[in-house]
Amino acid sequence: MQLQGIRVIDLTRILSGPFCTMFLADMGAEVIKIEDPKGGDPVRHQGEAPNGYSYYFASFNRNKRSITLDLRAPEGKDILRELLKTADVVVNNYRPGIMDKMGFGREALSRIKPDLVSCNVTGFGLDGPYADRPSFDFIAQAMSGFMSVNGAANEPPMRAAPPISDLIAGSYAAMGILAALVRRARTGQGEEVTTSLTDGLTSMLAFLATNYFATGKLPLRTGNDHALASPYGLFEASDGQVAIAPSNDTFYDKLLVALELEHLRERPEFANNALRFANREAINAALNEKVRQKPIAHWIEKLNEAGVPCGRVLNIGEVFDDPQTQHQQMRLTIEHPEHGRLDVLGFPIKFSDEPCQIHRPPPTLGVDNEAVLGQLGLTAEAIASLKNRGII
Amino acid sequence: MQLQGIRVIDLTRILSGPFCTMFLADMGAEVIKIEDPKGGDPVRHQGEAPNGYSYYFASFNRNKRSITLDLRAPEGKDILRELLKTADVVVNNYRPGIMDKMGFGREALSRIKPDLVSCNVTGFGLDGPYADRPSFDFIAQAMSGFMSVNGAANEPPMRAAPPISDLIAGSYAAMGILAALVRRARTGQGEEVTTSLTDGLTSMLAFLATNYFATGKLPLRTGNDHALASPYGLFEASDGQVAIAPSNDTFYDKLLVALELEHLRERPEFANNALRFANREAINAALNEKVRQKPIAHWIEKLNEAGVPCGRVLNIGEVFDDPQTQHQQMRLTIEHPEHGRLDVLGFPIKFSDEPCQIHRPPPTLGVDNEAVLGQLGLTAEAIASLKNRGII
Repeated sequence: MQLQGIRVIDLTRILSGPFCTMFLADMGAEVIKIEDPKGGDPVRHQGEAPNGYSYYFASFNRNKRSITLDLRAPEGKDILRELLKTADVVVNNYRPGIMDKMGFGREALSRIKPDLVSCNVTGFGLDGPYADRPSFDFIAQAMSGFMSVNGAANEPPMRAAPPISDLIAGSYAAMGILAALVRRARTGQGEEVTTSLTDGLTSMLAFLATNYFATGKLPLRTGNDHALASPYGLFEASDGQVAIAPSNDTFYDKLLVALELEHLRERPEFANNALRFANREAINAALNEKVRQKPIAHWIEKLNEAGVPCGRVLNIGEVFDDPQTQHQQMRLTIEHPEHGRLDVLGFPIKFSDEPCQIHRPPPTLGVDNEAVLGQLGLTAEAIASLKNRGII
Repeated sequence: MQLQGIRVIDLTRILSGPFCTMFLADMGAEVIKIEDPKGGDPVRHQGEAPNGYSYYFASFNRNKRSITLDLRAPEGKDILRELLKTADVVVNNYRPGIMDKMGFGREALSRIKPDLVSCNVTGFGLDGPYADRPSFDFIAQAMSGFMSVNGAANEPPMRAAPPISDLIAGSYAAMGILAALVRRARTGQGEEVTTSLTDGLTSMLAFLATNYFATGKLPLRTGNDHALASPYGLFEASDGQVAIAPSNDTFYDKLLVALELEHLRERPEFANNALRFANREAINAALNEKVRQKPIAHWIEKLNEAGVPCGRVLNIGEVFDDPQTQHQQMRLTIEHPEHGRLDVLGFPIKFSDEPCQIHRPPPTLGVDNEAVLGQLGLTAEAIASLKNRGII
């Protein structure tokens, strides 16, 4: 696999960091998740757990090993130091400065292993006036500008329900770590990679930010309508809504043909996107009059035949029953040795030669203590003593 | 920089692919964007362009070179083939099968350069029943399940305004390419990486998907309220809304202290998250009664002091005026040699030793024709002839 032979020491918890190391683990890295002996990653205790194991935790932590370690204890720190000497990457999502206080700041890490790639995912970045503030997804959605552009025109700003600022920051962290590994292969040098929940979402504002840079004008909230293209949005079929997204004149014309509404070509008020944008209600009404006559399934088939981007608004259940989602294996079943069948989200990145795979079930807390600490040369007695004293 | 010495042939257009190659370029790869001689990437003609250059295009294409090439012409294909022999990576966001039809399918690419990493970003994936369907961001938001969970409880599903399915797929593509480069450094072998707009967003459903896997119950839309935690959302200060996100009992207690509402600890109906969740309206009302007495700025300071995650809902203008965004340099000014000052989005991934930087302004269409084709050994006369015949 892509990251075979890469060892990652994973000090992260909750979401952004574990999402980062999930990608590394899925691509074949050996990820050693270090957890607090008292309960471990809090996500172990969140979300539904029908077999006594959180599916939420399982999805983000499949393919990882788990060891417990009290990092406040000097002996715990010594063990971490020894583990880092064997590692290629170390990842944390503590607030800025915590790793320094623990004795594992950037300089200390360089001394422990000069070519180590380290990564810190934070709420607001390593420095700046808000660096020390606590943050969560909702705060990042609010402060990145992302919420301000979402929602209907006359309604307040609307967040996205999934914790996407954590997820985007986590995936950026994985990207940055991999880039640093490419550099290390060339130069032999490690580096520190950081990203933040807020910067990650801000980087996703696309034309909403760049048009503002160009004009100084704030974008308006437009609900499900596109801010630049018309018609574009949800339309009313006889049995529910259908998403139709003809993004330019060519697609618009294909749509008219597919709906047998070619006569609309003659209407001067719909002659180009700017006019259709100005007359959005009228064009939407004209299209809906036709769309309303047949069910969603009819239009999905007809419009796809005509090459017009369209689709159903699928709920979560429909998504995972959908033949395309199933073909892409976006829901995977894992047989857990202790907890039985667990379902997790699939792999969004596909590789032709060495595809991502489940090579290790999501770990029971501390399941790899003996194996990992044994590799460091600790005897069974020493490990038992650490356990008795609550250090692992 | 991380990707120094890596050459990327970039056949992508619009958004998902260009976002992928933007990261590679920002991290130091030489990205050669191949554009149609007739107008180039359509995004050149989209978005606001006060200096005659689209800021939207600029943001996604800074740090890249541009050459024009008609890939329908046999001579254009020959030139592409020669370029690929000099490359490490080739990226496209055509529909599945188009590269094969052009003569650059996976096997052909392996023959041209065995260790080439290739990447294809698609709407629905390389295969499966919808593989050939056209797609756009709005369709991916609808079909991934993402829209279905966003929006207020009694309102229809709500998309996010930024084209996040393109952006997430683009960033996953960059991650996959980098992982394939790590493998190539070890094995000498290339590989094909693919990801899709729909799978990318589906992979971001987090607990909304995993709780469904665990229980078969569909998540409800909860607007700006958290689906699991309460209180959590927007609260009413004297001069507007403030986001407050105390995600667990510890943070909730800190919030009560900061608001001087410790007496709420005694209220049995608010004793734990499950009860507060069941009595969300009541707890929100109790908090709002206090929050309403002071302005946003007061609460931001007071709650951050107390360690409670909170923040303003910033509009796009406020985001880029904000001292933290400025500290993190999330808006960058480029001096373009022909078009003057252009502003683009900054770098969300920070590297300690070799930070991302603007090393090349966003390109004028075909600005690198002479330099890049000259490296292939084409004479000035040959290049002029290609130009006269519309091949470049």
